[in-house]
Amino acid sequence: MVDFSIPAHVFIYILDLFGTMAFAVTGAFKAIENKSDIVGVLLLATITGVAGGVIRDVVMGQFPNALSDPAYVAITVTSGIAIFFLYTHLKKHWNLFLKFDAIGLGVFSIIGATFAYNLVGLNFLAIMLAGVLTAVGGGILRDVFVTQVPIVFVKEFYVSASFIGILVFYFMLYFGGELYSATIIGLAITTALRLIAMKYNWNLPKVKGI
Amino acid sequence: MVDFSIPAHVFIYILDLFGTMAFAVTGAFKAIENKSDIVGVLLLATITGVAGGVIRDVVMGQFPNALSDPAYVAITVTSGIAIFFLYTHLKKHWNLFLKFDAIGLGVFSIIGATFAYNLVGLNFLAIMLAGVLTAVGGGILRDVFVTQVPIVFVKEFYVSASFIGILVFYFMLYFGGELYSATIIGLAITTALRLIAMKYNWNLPKVKGI
Amino acid sequence: MVDFSIPAHVFIYILDLFGTMAFAVTGAFKAIENKSDIVGVLLLATITGVAGGVIRDVVMGQFPNALSDPAYVAITVTSGIAIFFLYTHLKKHWNLFLKFDAIGLGVFSIIGATFAYNLVGLNFLAIMLAGVLTAVGGGILRDVFVTQVPIVFVKEFYVSASFIGILVFYFMLYFGGELYSATIIGLAITTALRLIAMKYNWNLPKVKGI
Repeated sequence: MVDFSIPAHVFIYILDLFGTMAFAVTGAFKAIENKSDIVGVLLLATITGVAGGVIRDVVMGQFPNALSDPAYVAITVTSGIAIFFLYTHLKKHWNLFLKFDAIGLGVFSIIGATFAYNLVGLNFLAIMLAGVLTAVGGGILRDVFVTQVPIVFVKEFYVSASFIGILVFYFMLYFGGELYSATIIGLAITTALRLIAMKYNWNLPKVKGI
Repeated sequence: MVDFSIPAHVFIYILDLFGTMAFAVTGAFKAIENKSDIVGVLLLATITGVAGGVIRDVVMGQFPNALSDPAYVAITVTSGIAIFFLYTHLKKHWNLFLKFDAIGLGVFSIIGATFAYNLVGLNFLAIMLAGVLTAVGGGILRDVFVTQVPIVFVKEFYVSASFIGILVFYFMLYFGGELYSATIIGLAITTALRLIAMKYNWNLPKVKGI
Repeated sequence: MVDFSIPAHVFIYILDLFGTMAFAVTGAFKAIENKSDIVGVLLLATITGVAGGVIRDVVMGQFPNALSDPAYVAITVTSGIAIFFLYTHLKKHWNLFLKFDAIGLGVFSIIGATFAYNLVGLNFLAIMLAGVLTAVGGGILRDVFVTQVPIVFVKEFYVSASFIGILVFYFMLYFGGELYSATIIGLAITTALRLIAMKYNWNLPKVKGI
C-alpha cells in the first residue's frame, strides 16, 4: 500500500528524482567502462538522467523542467560522483541498478504521458510519444555516445514495457479513471513487466535467420 | 503530366505520406538487420519516417506536425509491421525501396523548404537548412542508432540531390515563379538526380589518398 | 591587451565567427577522413560549427541565431571548401587547428553562458548548461556521426576546461563584476586551460582497472 500521508504530487516527485538517479547511475557506469574521466562521467550521468525529459519538453514547446529545478542535475551529479568513487564496490550490484532502472522506466513513461495529457488533453498520439520519448530518450543518447546500438532497439521487452504501461494509463483516463490512480497503475505495470521480462528473459518475436 | 483533378495540397499531402512510408521502410529494414524485436522495429521505422520533420518543426519553433496529425505515425507503424512480417519476401525488393527512398528524399526536401518559405519568406538560409534537415534528419538518426556512419555523409550524391532541388525551388520563387510549380519541379529534380546517381553510380570528388 | 578601438560586442562577434571556423575545420577533417564527398564535408563542417548554438537556442526556446545570421553558415561552408581542396597541405597543421579549437571552446562556452544570463539572469544551472551545451554540442554530433565516442567524454580536460571558465564567469557576475570583463576572463581561462592540458597532456583521475 502506498502511504497516503504524503500528498500525491510529492510522491510522484520523489519517484521522479529516484528515476533520475537510476538512469544517471547507468550513464555513469557506461562512461566509466569507456574510460571517461570524472567530468565525462558527470556529463554522461546527467545526459542519461535528464535528456529524455528535456527532449520531451523541447518537442512540446516548453522550457525544460530540468533547467528550472536544480534538484535533477544535483541528483545526476551526486550519483555520478558516488559511482565514480565507489565503482569497484558497486559494480557487483549492477543487477540491483537494473531493477532501479526498471523503476525509472515506469516513472518516466508515465510522467511523460501525464505531461502531454496536461498540455493537450486525451490525445493518444501525444501521450504515447511523450511517454516513450521521456522513458527512452536518455538511454538512447547514453548508448549512442558510447557507440553501442541503443538497448531499446535490441533488448527484450524494454520499450514494450513502457508502451503497455502508457496504453493502460491512457485507457484508464479514457474511461473516466482518476489521474492519480492511472499514474500509479501505469507506472506499476511498466516497472513490473520490465522486472518480469528481466527475470524470465522474455523475448519478443524477431525476424528469423538475419 | 500531373493530374490536376485532385487539388495541389492533397497531391502534396499524399506524396508526404508516401515519403514517410518509404523512409519508415528503410528504418524497419535496418532495425531487423540489427536483430530488433517487433517494438524496436516500429520505433526505428517511426523515428526514420518522422524525425526529420519533427527536428525541423522544433528548430523552427513550431509544434511538431507528426504529433498533431496521426496519419504519419499510423503510416510508419503499418509500414514497420508489414516489413517485419514480410521481411524475407521483401528484402529481394530492396532496390525498389531505394527508389521509393529517392521519392521520399525529393518530397521531404521540398516540403521542408516550403515550410520555411511559409514561415519566414524568401530567406535562402532558412529554406535550405529546413529542406535539408527534413530530408536527411530521419536517415541520420536511423544510421547513428545502428552505429553506422550516416549514408548522407558518405553516399554518392544523396544530400547533394536534396541541395540542388532546393536551390532550383528557391530560384524559381525568387524569379516570381508560382509555389506549386516550384514545388513539383524542385522535388522532381531531387528525385531524378538521386535515381540517376544510383543508376550510373555517380560520385562527387573526394580527397584522394585518405 | 585587447584593442578597445573596436567595440566590445564586435570583438565578441569576431571571436564567435573565429570559433565557428575552428569547429567547422575539425568537422571537415573528420568528414574527409571518413571518405565523405564535398557535400558531406560541407554538411559535417556546418553541423560541427553551428549545432552547439542551435541546440542551445532551441532548448532555451529561441529562434536559432545561425538561421537568422547567414555569416555563420557562410563561414562553415567556406572553411569546408578550403579544407577539402587544401587537405593534403593542411593536415600537417592539425596541431594548429587544435589550438584554434581551444579558442573555439572558450568562446562558445562563454557565449552560451552569456546567452543564458541575458535570458534568465544569474541562474547557475541555466548558465552552466547553456555554456557547456554550446561548447560541446557540435563536437559531440561530429564524433557520433563518424561513429566515434565523443572526445568530450574521453579526452583529457576538454569539457572540464569549459566548466571551469564558466564557473569563473558566473562568480565574477555574482560578485558584481562587469559582463564584458567576465566574458573575456572566462573565455581566456577555458582556452588557456585547454591549451595547457594539451601541452602537458593533463589527465583527470579515471577509475582504475577498467
